Amino acid sequence: MTYNDNKLTACVLIIGNEILSGRTQDINLNFIANTLRTRGIAVKECRVIPDDESVIIDTVNECRQRYGLVFTTGGIGPTHDDITAACIAKAFGRPLVTNPEALALLENYYSSNNFGGMTDVRARMALMPEDSTLLLNPISSAPGFNVENVYVLPGVPRIMQGIFQLLLPSLPMGKPIMMKSVSAFMRESLIAKTLTEIQHAHPETDIGSYPAMKDGQPFLSLVAKGTDEQNIDQVIEKIKQMLISQGASPLTQEQV
Amino acid sequence: MTYNDNKLTACVLIIGNEILSGRTQDINLNFIANTLRTRGIAVKECRVIPDDESVIIDTVNECRQRYGLVFTTGGIGPTHDDITAACIAKAFGRPLVTNPEALALLENYYSSNNFGGMTDVRARMALMPEDSTLLLNPISSAPGFNVENVYVLPGVPRIMQGIFQLLLPSLPMGKPIMMKSVSAFMRESLIAKTLTEIQHAHPETDIGSYPAMKDGQPFLSLVAKGTDEQNIDQVIEKIKQMLISQGASPLTQEQV
Repeated sequence: MTYNDNKLTACVLIIGNEILSGRTQDINLNFIANTLRTRGIAVKECRVIPDDESVIIDTVNECRQRYGLVFTTGGIGPTHDDITAACIAKAFGRPLVTNPEALALLENYYSSNNFGGMTDVRARMALMPEDSTLLLNPISSAPGFNVENVYVLPGVPRIMQGIFQLLLPSLPMGKPIMMKSVSAFMRESLIAKTLTEIQHAHPETDIGSYPAMKDGQPFLSLVAKGTDEQNIDQVIEKIKQMLISQGASPLTQEQV
Repeated sequence: MTYNDNKLTACVLIIGNEILSGRTQDINLNFIANTLRTRGIAVKECRVIPDDESVIIDTVNECRQRYGLVFTTGGIGPTHDDITAACIAKAFGRPLVTNPEALALLENYYSSNNFGGMTDVRARMALMPEDSTLLLNPISSAPGFNVENVYVLPGVPRIMQGIFQLLLPSLPMGKPIMMKSVSAFMRESLIAKTLTEIQHAHPETDIGSYPAMKDGQPFLSLVAKGTDEQNIDQVIEKIKQMLISQGASPLTQEQV
């Protein structure tokens, strides 16, 4: 599987000891997955990895070969544990250089608003692999960057999301991946057999079954996902009938 | 790096299309990481992978070689998309067989409480790789299972957590990994240089710097993590003094 064959697939790399230690709950994968889905890009894998140079380099090089697009979050600030930019440069075999456009953005930001002007430490945030494309930051000023099919983003969710919304139009576009779901108070084991039959009759739609407890009772969400809305609607209708025939009162939800 | 050299490291595999599509926000990694940390086991990597047979088999086989312990969540229910047990069996080259102890637990559960008794579909949840060790489920009845250094758990957080608490005493034990943190309204770029010096003076403690926005102002959390509490306390004290010298009012938090 190479980049060109497979441009509508994505891998998300969450870089940060704080996620692996349990200090911080990641919410970036969820945002990226939902946003890419509306553009027809499917996240096929996510890895959470530590702030460790050789792990970052090896993982980036493996995943950029395997998937059409790679998005990293985390590790691009000014402190000692921010090593992502240097690792991406090494992964691509490019020198780490000061990007003049990024430096100008940082200088402008820190010279205004009484932020105390430019310093060596702040200038570190303009260091990127040679010939990176800037990913503009509408919230603070430190930009992310793009090298080939790898997009390097900060870890702070609000800033990551701001940059992501701006870069989205530059990504390849496929048919939006839609999801619709039906939920009901129901035991999964009572409908598993019929659900398998529905899945076999509709291989182009991906059916997921997600049990939970609600008010102390078994509650089930059945999700139909795909790019063919008519087919999804047929699946949803069959699932509804299946639930009604088991005495349940199904609720439908749409999520495009 | 092999299993025996490295028994206090862990990898978490989150198996499920619903996490990669963005439908569901994973919270299992965070629970597992925090719980293992108190036992001195460090989560070194997490991968989120789809309900895809070859991906699951390849990932399990790669990660069980690389890390001391592997925990999987998701895909062990009774429906067509629950393929984890069969994949683990293939990964270990063992037949998938009905575990008599698991079957008895399921029969007992479904024969009581007016749940309608045993069915073929429900019996699927007793299928496991040959010679698996059961991981008992204190919430519902379907058990997880353990093969060598791989622990296979359900995806529903409350049930996963119940099973996890019961299996925890059977895991190897190291020195608990402690975290303490100091927070203040502060721009990361103002303390980055001093923070690097503190990190270099205390290589045995891992210092992380996590910026955020709070009430529209830059807010910074500095985290010291390690197994030597005295060293952590020294680091925390130096960080506090650094923040005070910048005019901030630091707050300390302890998380063991």
